[in-house]
Amino acid sequence: MSHPDFKFLPQLRKNLFVIVFGTDTRAGKLFDIVLLWAIVLSVLSVMLESVREIREAYADLFFISEWFFTILFTIEYSLRIFITAEPKKYAFSFFGIIDLLATLPTYLTLFVAGGSYLIVIRSIRLLRIFRILKLGRYLREASVLSNALAASRHKILVFLGAVFTLAMIMGTLMYMIEGGESGFTSIPRSIYWAIVTITTVGYGDIAPQTILGQAVASMLMLMGYAIIAVPTGIVTTEIAQAEKNRKKKESAAKRECIACGKIGHAKDAIFCKNCAAKL
Amino acid sequence: MSHPDFKFLPQLRKNLFVIVFGTDTRAGKLFDIVLLWAIVLSVLSVMLESVREIREAYADLFFISEWFFTILFTIEYSLRIFITAEPKKYAFSFFGIIDLLATLPTYLTLFVAGGSYLIVIRSIRLLRIFRILKLGRYLREASVLSNALAASRHKILVFLGAVFTLAMIMGTLMYMIEGGESGFTSIPRSIYWAIVTITTVGYGDIAPQTILGQAVASMLMLMGYAIIAVPTGIVTTEIAQAEKNRKKKESAAKRECIACGKIGHAKDAIFCKNCAAKL
Amino acid sequence: MSHPDFKFLPQLRKNLFVIVFGTDTRAGKLFDIVLLWAIVLSVLSVMLESVREIREAYADLFFISEWFFTILFTIEYSLRIFITAEPKKYAFSFFGIIDLLATLPTYLTLFVAGGSYLIVIRSIRLLRIFRILKLGRYLREASVLSNALAASRHKILVFLGAVFTLAMIMGTLMYMIEGGESGFTSIPRSIYWAIVTITTVGYGDIAPQTILGQAVASMLMLMGYAIIAVPTGIVTTEIAQAEKNRKKKESAAKRECIACGKIGHAKDAIFCKNCAAKL
Amino acid sequence: MSHPDFKFLPQLRKNLFVIVFGTDTRAGKLFDIVLLWAIVLSVLSVMLESVREIREAYADLFFISEWFFTILFTIEYSLRIFITAEPKKYAFSFFGIIDLLATLPTYLTLFVAGGSYLIVIRSIRLLRIFRILKLGRYLREASVLSNALAASRHKILVFLGAVFTLAMIMGTLMYMIEGGESGFTSIPRSIYWAIVTITTVGYGDIAPQTILGQAVASMLMLMGYAIIAVPTGIVTTEIAQAEKNRKKKESAAKRECIACGKIGHAKDAIFCKNCAAKL
Repeated sequence: MSHPDFKFLPQLRKNLFVIVFGTDTRAGKLFDIVLLWAIVLSVLSVMLESVREIREAYADLFFISEWFFTILFTIEYSLRIFITAEPKKYAFSFFGIIDLLATLPTYLTLFVAGGSYLIVIRSIRLLRIFRILKLGRYLREASVLSNALAASRHKILVFLGAVFTLAMIMGTLMYMIEGGESGFTSIPRSIYWAIVTITTVGYGDIAPQTILGQAVASMLMLMGYAIIAVPTGIVTTEIAQAEKNRKKKESAAKRECIACGKIGHAKDAIFCKNCAAKL
Repeated sequence: MSHPDFKFLPQLRKNLFVIVFGTDTRAGKLFDIVLLWAIVLSVLSVMLESVREIREAYADLFFISEWFFTILFTIEYSLRIFITAEPKKYAFSFFGIIDLLATLPTYLTLFVAGGSYLIVIRSIRLLRIFRILKLGRYLREASVLSNALAASRHKILVFLGAVFTLAMIMGTLMYMIEGGESGFTSIPRSIYWAIVTITTVGYGDIAPQTILGQAVASMLMLMGYAIIAVPTGIVTTEIAQAEKNRKKKESAAKRECIACGKIGHAKDAIFCKNCAAKL
Repeated sequence: MSHPDFKFLPQLRKNLFVIVFGTDTRAGKLFDIVLLWAIVLSVLSVMLESVREIREAYADLFFISEWFFTILFTIEYSLRIFITAEPKKYAFSFFGIIDLLATLPTYLTLFVAGGSYLIVIRSIRLLRIFRILKLGRYLREASVLSNALAASRHKILVFLGAVFTLAMIMGTLMYMIEGGESGFTSIPRSIYWAIVTITTVGYGDIAPQTILGQAVASMLMLMGYAIIAVPTGIVTTEIAQAEKNRKKKESAAKRECIACGKIGHAKDAIFCKNCAAKL
Repeated sequence: MSHPDFKFLPQLRKNLFVIVFGTDTRAGKLFDIVLLWAIVLSVLSVMLESVREIREAYADLFFISEWFFTILFTIEYSLRIFITAEPKKYAFSFFGIIDLLATLPTYLTLFVAGGSYLIVIRSIRLLRIFRILKLGRYLREASVLSNALAASRHKILVFLGAVFTLAMIMGTLMYMIEGGESGFTSIPRSIYWAIVTITTVGYGDIAPQTILGQAVASMLMLMGYAIIAVPTGIVTTEIAQAEKNRKKKESAAKRECIACGKIGHAKDAIFCKNCAAKL
């Protein structure tokens, strides 16, 4: 996030902005690290609260910590809204929405029971860690990965559609074969079983008992085994492509012919391939 | 599907054809969307009917919906046969056969009990969705995938044959080792277990109990772990190849020498590699 | 197998050789197909015999079929030894040994009980199917696969060694954490569990119950998840390499300069890159 | 390890060094093989001791073998410290630390119960096997693998972070949906389930029972199925890159221009691309 225009803002807001949104200064880094620990602790507290023995032993502690962190994050959110030059832009950005959602669940518990588990949304805020670590390197990697996934999203969708159709047909088939025994009590359940099998998860809560059912299941497994190769092949090809493009871009940017300005010369080239001038 | 020759057809048939088979006009698109929803609802209805509690509560509703959709699809199928210029070609095309099979099961239930589950074949009709979305892009991706799978089908067959032989031998071995205990009650069952294990599905309904059996199973797992790499490698190589060919074709089609007409020049080429004319 | 020198052999042996070892003539093909069906039936018979209900119902049938096929295969084996010009070479070849092992188990049952299951070795003989289908294409694919596996065997061994060491350490750790509960009753059993987990088979016959155990198991799973990428990467790279080499060889073999004899010219080359003569 | 400067050392130390650290001489090889067997036997002995029936039957034997091997390895460790020219460098090297840790646990049992299982650390010493086998080839492969993993560590970390966040959110969601039934008794347990599912291990000790829970689980499985492609794609790309670099380096090192000394010429090049001299 680039520094907004602070010409008409008081000095305090300016200083706070550097601390809250920036990561370059000592204070800005410290703020982010303290914030991260607060997020970790609040998420951990929600998780531990769900374990009955722990909840019963430390009920008060959990109540206090929940409200403490919620008020802390509410203050932080208000601060961000106050000091940024474009409150709307922040409020509707990815992190702006997450920051808001991270505070609401506790207030919700005043009206609705059970809403407190939504606090786990806070864990998404942990992605801020990549900003603190100055994660040029990580961000570049993440962008290579997300580009590769984005480029292959059409293929992945076609593939998932095919897998789901296969699961629907095989699930119905198994429902007819096993006839309600050994867990195949309905078609939706059998489709669930088929997905569990194709993806090689294999819980075993539903498993065929008849010879025919086991034969069909074996076939489905072998198909799943061959099919799993497809998304891998897709993503591998895209990652290899993305990696290649990035490298080509990086290396091409380095060598430029002074005579004609053409870039993209091989590493050991001596003459420009475009105008024959010495590089 | 290209427009057939309508010279000698009445105007009604012509208009219907554009609506039923086409997707370019507003009416054609609406028809396809309504059809898709009908398919989704009819498939959902069959699935929910298989859940006993729901079936018992809404028996009448399911009976009505089943016949409603069946008659609807019968009308649609007749319409398609009637308006197309080449009824035979449609009737024996992939979608023609599926469209017919999607209506038959309900009529079958008049004579045979239990046939209604075959209605799930209707779900294959959902593949029409790709036509509505104007899926030039999806179709191209699907063709890249299916070409890659077709190109690697010999290797995949050799591989599956090897895996099945391995499962047969290891299954028999485990039957001899475990001796009927812990689920290894027959060789076919033990082969089923071996396939469950090699494909890393691992239900756990059959699991070795003796030390020797667990040692052999561990070996089989490690083999399966290394083996799973093979289909992935095959398909990845083919997809990379298919992707490369498509790109080469696309880019090659773009650069053509005006002098000799040769296409397929490198991006940074200045002279035609065939006749040395300036590109 | 090339035709051996038959100059000094009687005509009968010569004719039989063409039928038994060859696949080009009508009789040779028929012989192989009959043989394959005999193998399939004999293997199926052994498998079905292991299912108790079937064994008890058709005990006589199984006894007869077992001896029938065994005597048949014994005759076939003797025939092969008799008619080949180099009996020793055949007897110690891969298929020679398998052919012998496929007949022995039944004779063994005269002296030792339970040996009959070894008959499953016969299933390896089914690999002959590739010879009948004239499987130039399949054999080439199989050789690409086996070359790729052979080229990567050192890497795979290093990898399996690392995985086994990891399983040993994690298994012992889990034995110490879970303390004999929930199936972790001994270190070998815990190592078995670790292998079941790393390979993502996950039977569930042994599963951690303590929080700490589940945390360590989660870590092991994520490691296994990342690790499975390694053999895939190895084999994919090798298959891509093998495929590339085969294609290069094939295409290079096609274009040869008449002037200097150099092969390996690009598809669209017009002049020899070695001596500038027109191709 | 290169031979240290032995000018001022007595002959005995010199000879021992060749035997203990070297693998080129007959004695050195024998020493390493005996050592490896001792390690294998000691590790096996610890493992078997953990099986209750065996422990109770051979308690004395295990006690003796444990102390025998511990004293043996203590002597070996002292010897290594004594004869090496740089004791500090060895003591803090990877194998130096492992060698020490391999002897300590038994002494620890004099003071603390249960420490003896740490002996399994000895199994890491088995990695020495690669030194005996003169494993130039294996070491090169291992370095290709570890380079590829090192190069992709940032991507893998980003990926594991994303998977863990996904597991946290889906685990909490499932805890809310299943409501303590069928094993989802707390959020940490549900996260454990989510990891078991995403990684396709699928024990089945915890499995969703409600329709909604199964639907969400199916979605998670399909995501896990698509996601598993990512680390594979990353590592495959890196291995392919590492392999390519190695080959380029090897082949480039072979062809050198005599005139200008430039290396890295293509296989079929006739003239130096740098100075046009004939190669």
